[in-house]
Amino acid sequence: MKNFLKAAATAAVVFSVLFTSFAHAADKSYTLRLAETWGPNFPIFGDATKNMAEMAEKMSNGRLKIRIDSANRHKAPFGVFDMVKAGQYDMGHSASYYWKGKVPNTLYFTSMPFGMNAQEQWAWFYHGGGMELMQEVYEPHNMLSFPGGNTGNQMGGWFRKEIKTLEDLDGLKMRIPGFAGEVFAEVGVNPTNIPPGELYTALERNTIDAVEWVGPALDLRLGFQQIADYYYTGWHEPATELQFLINKDVWEDLPADLQEVLRVSMRTASYDMLTQSVHANAQAWASIRDEYPNVKVKTFPDDIFKAMVAANEKVLEAYSRDNEQGQRIIKSQQAYLDKTRAYIDISERAYLNTMAELEE
Amino acid sequence: MKNFLKAAATAAVVFSVLFTSFAHAADKSYTLRLAETWGPNFPIFGDATKNMAEMAEKMSNGRLKIRIDSANRHKAPFGVFDMVKAGQYDMGHSASYYWKGKVPNTLYFTSMPFGMNAQEQWAWFYHGGGMELMQEVYEPHNMLSFPGGNTGNQMGGWFRKEIKTLEDLDGLKMRIPGFAGEVFAEVGVNPTNIPPGELYTALERNTIDAVEWVGPALDLRLGFQQIADYYYTGWHEPATELQFLINKDVWEDLPADLQEVLRVSMRTASYDMLTQSVHANAQAWASIRDEYPNVKVKTFPDDIFKAMVAANEKVLEAYSRDNEQGQRIIKSQQAYLDKTRAYIDISERAYLNTMAELEE
Repeated sequence: MKNFLKAAATAAVVFSVLFTSFAHAADKSYTLRLAETWGPNFPIFGDATKNMAEMAEKMSNGRLKIRIDSANRHKAPFGVFDMVKAGQYDMGHSASYYWKGKVPNTLYFTSMPFGMNAQEQWAWFYHGGGMELMQEVYEPHNMLSFPGGNTGNQMGGWFRKEIKTLEDLDGLKMRIPGFAGEVFAEVGVNPTNIPPGELYTALERNTIDAVEWVGPALDLRLGFQQIADYYYTGWHEPATELQFLINKDVWEDLPADLQEVLRVSMRTASYDMLTQSVHANAQAWASIRDEYPNVKVKTFPDDIFKAMVAANEKVLEAYSRDNEQGQRIIKSQQAYLDKTRAYIDISERAYLNTMAELEE
Repeated sequence: MKNFLKAAATAAVVFSVLFTSFAHAADKSYTLRLAETWGPNFPIFGDATKNMAEMAEKMSNGRLKIRIDSANRHKAPFGVFDMVKAGQYDMGHSASYYWKGKVPNTLYFTSMPFGMNAQEQWAWFYHGGGMELMQEVYEPHNMLSFPGGNTGNQMGGWFRKEIKTLEDLDGLKMRIPGFAGEVFAEVGVNPTNIPPGELYTALERNTIDAVEWVGPALDLRLGFQQIADYYYTGWHEPATELQFLINKDVWEDLPADLQEVLRVSMRTASYDMLTQSVHANAQAWASIRDEYPNVKVKTFPDDIFKAMVAANEKVLEAYSRDNEQGQRIIKSQQAYLDKTRAYIDISERAYLNTMAELEE
């Protein structure tokens, strides 16, 4: 009896050790803190972050939780890069081109004027060497970057007057930030940046003559269709891809299964965002067409586009001068675009044009 | 001492029970058997199945394994529906329109002539009621169906002679199966079905005059570019979406975390397949352009398309007559297409046309 009890006691210890170590391996939970550039409940962009976090938590049965802080909490919408790099946050949701003032070659991983569309860009990221180039840019900053959601082709903006010639652009005051603003400046536009909350009033009071935002779904909420009649088709951001950032130490600390859970959740959220964008833009555009017959869709004339293509090349050349890595990224993107566009032209574009002609 | 030992023994039992039930919950593994319609290592289509299985296994840390049987094993490429329904296989990878002879309303969940493109169709599935309609069709057969990978816009086929008028289609012998074949038959084409392995010889020996397959990547392997000069743009399958099937009992037996692992793996594999298709088609089309200068891309003239639109409406009307559910699905798709296409026209199509004009 004594031996039996002794054995039982030993067993208890063994079980206890086994249980603890097993529970440790299969049950260790991770809570990652994510800072997003957007305010709370920002439509579509913010949905991508939530979608990613929900997939990761459900698929891991709660072992991987992502706590999202919107800009109202961390107060640093354009500090996401620095905060994730320094480990103040484990992850970020933002857009790569926001960091071009800090790390010039981050510019190339969001969308480029006259560049790839969303499908072409994903093909470049996942099959054309794009992911490898992006990691090459981010690794020295102790971070990994992943595609974080695509808006699809962005609209060229709302104009109060029709743009018929290059002269019409001369001195035009337009809200268009970033690289596209620099290109527009080359053809005479006076680009300005104004906080979103003040855009409607600025346009209404002629403080600005035109405003570029995103596309019907997000534009509709700001009300530009009430005060601008001309809605121009896009050229400057054909496939804006947001970005998930993760601190490299945090990434490497995750077990392989949770790395895969996170990798797949991010990739799916990126794809899902374009699906949601197409839906939301289609609904919003139907509302604008129904309720604002004043709105006319226009495309810039060819000579304006030709001037902008030249301006884009000039700005890009100056931007990447003496920058071997930047030139390599541009070359990779242009070679990839040449091939994919030749195919997209005979498939997707030909089909859409056939259908449009049948409608006429 | 005796009390201590008694307590220890009790603890051992408690630990043992705890350990067993914990291990049971967190460690129970599932191996699902999947039958795919394709032969082993079939490019792109077969890669989608493997991609899905790999994601599921890695994300679940091996708790969810999917064993793939290709057609050479199960010998029933078009028996996938029946085998999954009966539980002989847990899952399938195939295409919904293959089952139209068995369950007519399965036709609508792959791609329809003059229908939605891939992005529009995903928006319809996930935001426009498409998934709900698909489950309504599949649930009586004790299965769930999920999007399983998109080919993108399929090409209209290889023709040995240029098609200039409707008369040129009269009596033309063409390999074009399924619903599109029925539409083509209405405008005088003589559709035939020939096994893939015999297509090249049939075209070379004029047993057939034309052949529709998929797109550059898969077409190139069959060699049609060597013997046909005219490659027509598409109209009949603008967004062919493959299908994952799962037996409903098997699905319901999975714990919630593994259901989500499977759901996300399938959705991601579906998106990933279009990304891979764009890449592979772009590479293949570049090869065809370089090595076969004889190949000319053509689009059918408008009067042929108008006749095919009318034929499509006629065949569809006959097909869905006295079928409330079918009519409801058609209506949902058409209403959704009207809205999304109006948006795609001012965004994606406008951009692609702008770029094409600048190239000229």
